[in-house]
Amino acid sequence: MTNPLSTRDICNPFDDDKLHEECGVFGIYGHPEAAALAALGLHALQHRGQEAAGIVSHDGRHFHSHKAMGKVGDNFSSEEVIKSLKGEAALGHNRYATTGGTVLRNVQPIFADLANGGLAVAHNGNLTNAATLHRRLVQEGSIFQSTMDTEVIIHLVANSKKTRIVDCMIDAMSKIVGAYSLVAMTGKKLIGMRDPFGVRPLVLGKLENAYILTSETCALDIIGADFIRDVEPGEVVVIDDSGVNSHFPYNNPPRRFCIFEHIYFSRPDSVVEGRSVYDVRKAIGRQLALENPVDADLIIPVPDSGTPAAIGYSTESGIPFDLGIIRNHYVGRTFIEPTDQIRHLGVKLKHNANRALINGKRVILVDDSIVRGTTSTKIVQMVREAGATEVHMRIASPPTTYSCFYGVDTPSRNKLLAARFDLKEMCKFIGADSLNFISIDGLYTAMGEEGRNAAQPQYCDACFTGEYPIELTDHENGAEKELTLLTECY
Amino acid sequence: MTNPLSTRDICNPFDDDKLHEECGVFGIYGHPEAAALAALGLHALQHRGQEAAGIVSHDGRHFHSHKAMGKVGDNFSSEEVIKSLKGEAALGHNRYATTGGTVLRNVQPIFADLANGGLAVAHNGNLTNAATLHRRLVQEGSIFQSTMDTEVIIHLVANSKKTRIVDCMIDAMSKIVGAYSLVAMTGKKLIGMRDPFGVRPLVLGKLENAYILTSETCALDIIGADFIRDVEPGEVVVIDDSGVNSHFPYNNPPRRFCIFEHIYFSRPDSVVEGRSVYDVRKAIGRQLALENPVDADLIIPVPDSGTPAAIGYSTESGIPFDLGIIRNHYVGRTFIEPTDQIRHLGVKLKHNANRALINGKRVILVDDSIVRGTTSTKIVQMVREAGATEVHMRIASPPTTYSCFYGVDTPSRNKLLAARFDLKEMCKFIGADSLNFISIDGLYTAMGEEGRNAAQPQYCDACFTGEYPIELTDHENGAEKELTLLTECY
Amino acid sequence: MTNPLSTRDICNPFDDDKLHEECGVFGIYGHPEAAALAALGLHALQHRGQEAAGIVSHDGRHFHSHKAMGKVGDNFSSEEVIKSLKGEAALGHNRYATTGGTVLRNVQPIFADLANGGLAVAHNGNLTNAATLHRRLVQEGSIFQSTMDTEVIIHLVANSKKTRIVDCMIDAMSKIVGAYSLVAMTGKKLIGMRDPFGVRPLVLGKLENAYILTSETCALDIIGADFIRDVEPGEVVVIDDSGVNSHFPYNNPPRRFCIFEHIYFSRPDSVVEGRSVYDVRKAIGRQLALENPVDADLIIPVPDSGTPAAIGYSTESGIPFDLGIIRNHYVGRTFIEPTDQIRHLGVKLKHNANRALINGKRVILVDDSIVRGTTSTKIVQMVREAGATEVHMRIASPPTTYSCFYGVDTPSRNKLLAARFDLKEMCKFIGADSLNFISIDGLYTAMGEEGRNAAQPQYCDACFTGEYPIELTDHENGAEKELTLLTECY
Amino acid sequence: MTNPLSTRDICNPFDDDKLHEECGVFGIYGHPEAAALAALGLHALQHRGQEAAGIVSHDGRHFHSHKAMGKVGDNFSSEEVIKSLKGEAALGHNRYATTGGTVLRNVQPIFADLANGGLAVAHNGNLTNAATLHRRLVQEGSIFQSTMDTEVIIHLVANSKKTRIVDCMIDAMSKIVGAYSLVAMTGKKLIGMRDPFGVRPLVLGKLENAYILTSETCALDIIGADFIRDVEPGEVVVIDDSGVNSHFPYNNPPRRFCIFEHIYFSRPDSVVEGRSVYDVRKAIGRQLALENPVDADLIIPVPDSGTPAAIGYSTESGIPFDLGIIRNHYVGRTFIEPTDQIRHLGVKLKHNANRALINGKRVILVDDSIVRGTTSTKIVQMVREAGATEVHMRIASPPTTYSCFYGVDTPSRNKLLAARFDLKEMCKFIGADSLNFISIDGLYTAMGEEGRNAAQPQYCDACFTGEYPIELTDHENGAEKELTLLTECY
Repeated sequence: MTNPLSTRDICNPFDDDKLHEECGVFGIYGHPEAAALAALGLHALQHRGQEAAGIVSHDGRHFHSHKAMGKVGDNFSSEEVIKSLKGEAALGHNRYATTGGTVLRNVQPIFADLANGGLAVAHNGNLTNAATLHRRLVQEGSIFQSTMDTEVIIHLVANSKKTRIVDCMIDAMSKIVGAYSLVAMTGKKLIGMRDPFGVRPLVLGKLENAYILTSETCALDIIGADFIRDVEPGEVVVIDDSGVNSHFPYNNPPRRFCIFEHIYFSRPDSVVEGRSVYDVRKAIGRQLALENPVDADLIIPVPDSGTPAAIGYSTESGIPFDLGIIRNHYVGRTFIEPTDQIRHLGVKLKHNANRALINGKRVILVDDSIVRGTTSTKIVQMVREAGATEVHMRIASPPTTYSCFYGVDTPSRNKLLAARFDLKEMCKFIGADSLNFISIDGLYTAMGEEGRNAAQPQYCDACFTGEYPIELTDHENGAEKELTLLTECY
Repeated sequence: MTNPLSTRDICNPFDDDKLHEECGVFGIYGHPEAAALAALGLHALQHRGQEAAGIVSHDGRHFHSHKAMGKVGDNFSSEEVIKSLKGEAALGHNRYATTGGTVLRNVQPIFADLANGGLAVAHNGNLTNAATLHRRLVQEGSIFQSTMDTEVIIHLVANSKKTRIVDCMIDAMSKIVGAYSLVAMTGKKLIGMRDPFGVRPLVLGKLENAYILTSETCALDIIGADFIRDVEPGEVVVIDDSGVNSHFPYNNPPRRFCIFEHIYFSRPDSVVEGRSVYDVRKAIGRQLALENPVDADLIIPVPDSGTPAAIGYSTESGIPFDLGIIRNHYVGRTFIEPTDQIRHLGVKLKHNANRALINGKRVILVDDSIVRGTTSTKIVQMVREAGATEVHMRIASPPTTYSCFYGVDTPSRNKLLAARFDLKEMCKFIGADSLNFISIDGLYTAMGEEGRNAAQPQYCDACFTGEYPIELTDHENGAEKELTLLTECY
Repeated sequence: MTNPLSTRDICNPFDDDKLHEECGVFGIYGHPEAAALAALGLHALQHRGQEAAGIVSHDGRHFHSHKAMGKVGDNFSSEEVIKSLKGEAALGHNRYATTGGTVLRNVQPIFADLANGGLAVAHNGNLTNAATLHRRLVQEGSIFQSTMDTEVIIHLVANSKKTRIVDCMIDAMSKIVGAYSLVAMTGKKLIGMRDPFGVRPLVLGKLENAYILTSETCALDIIGADFIRDVEPGEVVVIDDSGVNSHFPYNNPPRRFCIFEHIYFSRPDSVVEGRSVYDVRKAIGRQLALENPVDADLIIPVPDSGTPAAIGYSTESGIPFDLGIIRNHYVGRTFIEPTDQIRHLGVKLKHNANRALINGKRVILVDDSIVRGTTSTKIVQMVREAGATEVHMRIASPPTTYSCFYGVDTPSRNKLLAARFDLKEMCKFIGADSLNFISIDGLYTAMGEEGRNAAQPQYCDACFTGEYPIELTDHENGAEKELTLLTECY
Repeated sequence: MTNPLSTRDICNPFDDDKLHEECGVFGIYGHPEAAALAALGLHALQHRGQEAAGIVSHDGRHFHSHKAMGKVGDNFSSEEVIKSLKGEAALGHNRYATTGGTVLRNVQPIFADLANGGLAVAHNGNLTNAATLHRRLVQEGSIFQSTMDTEVIIHLVANSKKTRIVDCMIDAMSKIVGAYSLVAMTGKKLIGMRDPFGVRPLVLGKLENAYILTSETCALDIIGADFIRDVEPGEVVVIDDSGVNSHFPYNNPPRRFCIFEHIYFSRPDSVVEGRSVYDVRKAIGRQLALENPVDADLIIPVPDSGTPAAIGYSTESGIPFDLGIIRNHYVGRTFIEPTDQIRHLGVKLKHNANRALINGKRVILVDDSIVRGTTSTKIVQMVREAGATEVHMRIASPPTTYSCFYGVDTPSRNKLLAARFDLKEMCKFIGADSLNFISIDGLYTAMGEEGRNAAQPQYCDACFTGEYPIELTDHENGAEKELTLLTECY
């Protein structure tokens, strides 16, 4: 009613122009405070989705559910809500909606009664053949309530002829194509499933006697849980009263973890696929300084995501690191839509250049990525207006040139700056004195590899290279639009 | 957030202790202001359900939907909402929820994508084999999102092997048992369907070039539409650009319209199954005076539902009609839960005896029915405390002795006053000097019949007689509970 | 947030075109549940003001206050609110705002710290020299927070040189001119004060050991309190631990109670200045039938305020009383603003003619008053469209021809139908076959007088006769506008 | 209704244990978008008060006002609100409430009608004789609506015998004692007034033809306005259509600007009393490293307020600066009140140690100040649990040992860590291996002075030294409590 959204900006003042991760999941089995811990876990994962959140719990007899538009802290902080989510097992989800159509029925986890009991599912990622499957299911009489991939999975599970729920899910897994990390909950089990390429993250943790399946380790840290291991690509993990059991139902292709999780999506204090995100980002900054040095007076991070790389760049180059751009921490929802009269003043709602520091200096700005280039343009202009004599932009990732189909919200290709222009034109577009990106090989080097293995890349880097490891079924047969059209009931 | 519900009390200050109709429907096809007219129609039908309302429209390409907890006027009065419900066809529904579980996903109309397009369904009544069908459908892989009968119907339609939507619906009709008047809307048609016994009402109306299917004629009056005819028991009416077409797919048993619609449910200004509700109620009052005369100074209606019968009683008996009980029109939600200290004061939130009128008089109270008897007890006491020397209670219906399974919310039998006590005990329970009900034959006489045809009653009067015309499948095989348990996800 | 107002329509479906009482007050001293009882009392007085309500309590040490826009039941029904209003004394107020400027700071009771302690004041009526006094006080350095008369009184009390609060109030009383019934509360006393002419009502009641000062007896009935007596014109009643004490500080002119309280403002179950309102209204109906008979088939009350007079008319004339206009009880806020396309349909949101009853009949409509005439016009048209062959309108008050300055919201004179037209023109305007009002002498006769004493009228009937008993200071010296202009800070 | 408050935590995750500035003001005269600019200015000043905000505008004829609990962005971002605040002059205020009694009537600016027109006043600071003045004014008949200092000032203005508003204000200034920067607005003027010692900040800016009076330069930057100069201690600045005029009505004592504005209150991008806040903080960090060196592997700022000093410490010491504590940017209102079962887990809602970085390292934590010590204790523990082998705490201010009476919210003295313990005990209390504060002389040195002039200190540093430059009238005569008691009406 009251609260709108789009508050992710709080995290990153310039993230109008960032790629967006589409979800975070948190499941826990075997703790008397399951729902409260799930709420805390989702809070730690808030950067992965701010538009809506939901938690389903099970108390041994019944499921209980609460979903709401908006952030976790605004909707799951009352004792009343948490108490209503009874039981020792809980499954939660943060949603970032790619399209305008965020409505409550699209909030996960979604829940269904199957012949042998209820099933709740929450999922991070994107099925690349969802529309194709959806069309086939509807023709066979299935009735859909949402436009979410997740519901396709549930229908596949419901239609499986197997009797055990785990087998039904493995059945469903054999039909879906895409990048996904999903967690399902029945009255007796918590089940995690990661796609065969392992594109999206999923980790296993433990707190006292309870097990946890979640997107990032920071969701373990917040509740003091121990990190056990990453769930493996193609693995199906089943947690119940007998403990943790693993299934690898299919032969897996080589792993292709999403490299952008390291560059921007994950929190810097998370350890992802064996590496500290903060460390990787500093290493990228050092490599960037090696590849693209320039003489200057100050290194200024574009807050907050550029900070670790800026520290690395400063260390390598010896140029001082300084806070040249100050954030306003109070930016909530969209502010006053300024009139033309005000707009020309160049209102700076989210940040302000530190004029006393910058004036008369040659500065290097370090940012993690450029998507459309709109924000970079504004930052360069703001820094120049504050008196910088030279502005050099250094980017801690290669040019983002291709769309993602694996669960990340990217603008269409023709809006990506790097797909429209070459380096020189990009530099001119953003108005900098120089612009450089880390090389793709340099990025792999910073990750600890000996460069990118072109024959068999160690990560999914499709957004930089256009090499998509997983088949784009719907995209190729034009079915993407169909999913939306059929079910549109606003 | 804010919204209260349970505001039906506004209508009848004493209806804590009334039976409750469970729904009102309104569908319109062929008018540029379809959604606005649907909102007005639902407003006129508000007495049939106040807990939630929904409207789905179709604009030739897309469906649009708005649902909300609470009353029509509170949720469908803004231009913004009405404008969002585009198109020349619209289907609306008022809901009275029988159980505590009123949640938004249970609000009708419900909508589904079928293989050949979208289908919205709204329905008044109750299927007596819903749980049995639900169990079978789930075993075959259907996934349910609600616990509503309506969803069972939609799944039956989705699973039909027929190709034309009307045939799919007739298919579904052959499988369901119960009392129902439903209206469905596709992108091209509005379809009405009434159960073979014709228990629940449904009328056909016309406004300019548009056709309307709705529960009562008062919903036609509010928009100035013409009443054409009642939809017949067992009839399937199909409205599209070619006009109105009727199907009678099955042989119908003799009609058994719900006699309680005349006694209490319908609005007094509606004409129901050929009779003016107001006229019938006055006739009942006259018959009641003939059957159960008593010497007194005043006839006092129990407001507001007892008023027409009280006028009839006054006409027949010659005793003056007077307003001895004054309502407070401002009763909204439940008021202050009084402390013990206050409760003993006998707080009268909803009504007050007109002491200056009543004091020292012998009064006859006329009410439409007694359910649990709790309210009658309070009224008699209030009237005595205001100084009445004698209090005679006359009831415009026979004793309500059996539960309804056909879409009316009745307490369990052991709470019905007439199932617990004989007449003398009831009189003592409510504290009156005398108590009388109209006889069942007298009721039929007031309806214009020559008494009740015991071999083949002209109406469904199961709540008075226990003779249920339609099979109670779920009730008999204990499946009722199951429906609730399986899907419980609060 | 959600709920605005203008819900008074719930009470009377046609009261767009009624005069409006401006307030109700309820003070109680000496009961452990004081605030809860005040809330109940205000609920019973809701018809006197629906736009806002407030209660201030005193617990022996501190004052506590809660005020809200909207109705009592919506804002004072939670245990939390009532519990926060601690203490054995409480003072409450319902507000009907005459102008658009209803804002929270204008909600009564208003409260101030005076040199000897706090004072809360609630008031029904209107000071006719408020603007004049306000201007003088501001010039002397007083700072106002509202545009309410009540604040003027408080400043006069604060500026009094007396030491005892009762004396300060009597001091203030000597300076103000107008029609007022006010109740004030200090930490130790409850004080009632009625203007010397006794224009507005105020009664004294008792519940156990507690005393009550309130506007109408129906507020005593709701909590089971006993009615003791009317407070006298010009009386100052002081209630404290020593009991009830009276002061008559000034010589009083003859009493001039507002006759419109009997015609429309008060609840029919109240006893006002010694007379039953319901009885008076029936007597007016009988007198109206004597003065203005007409041959017809039915008497139809304009609901709900016309009902008692219609019963009286029916009794006298022998023509049957019948419900020819059915209200929709669910009208809350303003409904859909209909488009032109819908407006011509003549949408009937609040009421519907009972066509089956009216069709082919000659009907007499009985209403309590006509103000602008807009609603009467619609009703006559609606009844004609339902098939009435003749429509005769009978009004239970003389023509309303003059504005009220004593606390009743009247349109400016040039909008009053009776100020614009003679009887014949009025009849034509509303479209009736005949129109008649009760005569002014007939009205006094129905009140039990031997006609109106022209030399010294027994009531204030300025709205009918233009004879204003109390000086209109501000109006005469043009100061009315000033009050608004000076303090306007929206 | 919905709104939460106490969201200032967003700014600083550890500021439960910080001193709090009590207000920010922003007045503008002569711009067609005055209210929109005021809203933007208040947004930039949000760190000075988050509990409530208000704006009053003047359109040449009328005042317009909007006030709300909560943050500027949540309440002043709609076009509707801004449009309602018409006119070319506007005055806004952010409030941080020291006591629980934040209610809407206490939100500034406050407004009053004086004999010669309306006056709105907003104010930052604290009068040290407010209660004494309040008592005297009430005895003379003044009626107060709030417990705010600001209202005392308005009453003094109202009671002045002068005719020109500026003279009335100067009159009032002669009676009040305390630390204050206030801005007043009449229909024709904007007036700024700073106390004779200049304790609280106030700056003058210009945008096109409009003049601005506001608390910090960051409120000028956000709208692209130019900084002109600081308003001088004891200066009265009058802005009207004739431009800017200054008055110095009294002899001023030497200036004593609040040194804590530089340490913590002001935004790092503001220039305060001629100095860049960011520069000063880095200089303090360098001085701190000189005074209190220690061998370690990492410098870690306590986010966010410790960051500039940590950079300075790193520069001086050569030890690397690194982000060892990661904030969660999504902390809104208070989160789930954890059960005991959860509390022992040591939930980290607002921040997380970067374990991969810290583990096995000797770290130096740099923070701006210690108040109670509670947060420092938690941080040290968190960093140790993340594997730090040594934890050294360095504080960029001297020990906070005395309460502030000049508009800053400080706990009572017996809760201040430095008032309870000596250095060694404090170090033990927070659990660090070593603890050091910058010296008071070192602080003055970092500010560019040659140490503190003990005879005539250059700043107000009473919180460190106990030397209060302004008389504490109420405190000394025990009148503080009285103000609250008299007016308590919750």
